[in-house]
Amino acid sequence: MDIKYINPFIIAAQTVFKTMLGISADMGKPILKTINSASGDVTGVMGLVGDKKGTVAISLRERGAKFVYKTLVGEECESINKDVVDAIGEITNIISGQARKEFEKSGINLSAAMPMVIVGKDVELNFITKIPIISLPFYFPVDSGNSEDKEIMYVDFSFE
Amino acid sequence: MDIKYINPFIIAAQTVFKTMLGISADMGKPILKTINSASGDVTGVMGLVGDKKGTVAISLRERGAKFVYKTLVGEECESINKDVVDAIGEITNIISGQARKEFEKSGINLSAAMPMVIVGKDVELNFITKIPIISLPFYFPVDSGNSEDKEIMYVDFSFE
Repeated sequence: MDIKYINPFIIAAQTVFKTMLGISADMGKPILKTINSASGDVTGVMGLVGDKKGTVAISLRERGAKFVYKTLVGEECESINKDVVDAIGEITNIISGQARKEFEKSGINLSAAMPMVIVGKDVELNFITKIPIISLPFYFPVDSGNSEDKEIMYVDFSFE
Repeated sequence: MDIKYINPFIIAAQTVFKTMLGISADMGKPILKTINSASGDVTGVMGLVGDKKGTVAISLRERGAKFVYKTLVGEECESINKDVVDAIGEITNIISGQARKEFEKSGINLSAAMPMVIVGKDVELNFITKIPIISLPFYFPVDSGNSEDKEIMYVDFSFE
């Protein structure tokens, strides 16, 4: 997979974190994802179709998803309820939209499908493709009082 | 949601069952899906984009998925392994493709994203949409020696 298909997702994830949550997310080392389990407990999946075809999955652990919800909406939540699911669906929509804008700059036009949000521990999530799946980890601080205490948002995608 | 968006999925599911598996699948009563759990243990998800936007989820219980695999490939399988996942991904692809052909007859052009297959018991699967989600159950016989013993393939979709 061409590097030019990776950058739009990096820019999109970091821009959305900065503008919507007011948080700088630091990217860790991208890896080739070879296991078929969801990277987190809550995963927003979005299909992208157009000049190219792909799928992006935005995945957070429970604590990270709750923190994103709290930061976005301003309310605490006890569990991964419908409101949190909707918030992760919205983040998936917005990161995909931002990535599509970046792809447009390279002359690649894409449309987004409807997001779907999957919740569960140890859910098996299989990208049905022969193309490599890239996993980008973004580290962000949660306000636990310990600045070293970070959560991760995974942006996993495959792009034909 | 207009009835004309439902028929393509009915025709597609029954045609694919008949031509690929040599089985007649009888449709049960369509329902409005209001719960957010996956209908089965193995679920192929496909985004559709174009003149309209939607998502379709093809869901089978473990026994149904194994039977579809056996009928398609001619081999028994012990568990929901990678081959079964690929087979359900393929069925999802083909049913979506057939539905798209039916939509075309109504002047609605759609492209398909990349399928994703989710495996797990009690997985929560949330369509992020305000549009109703329709669930079509298709009953088919499994060769258990009892002709009354049927499995179900659910075709769940939402279409804006």
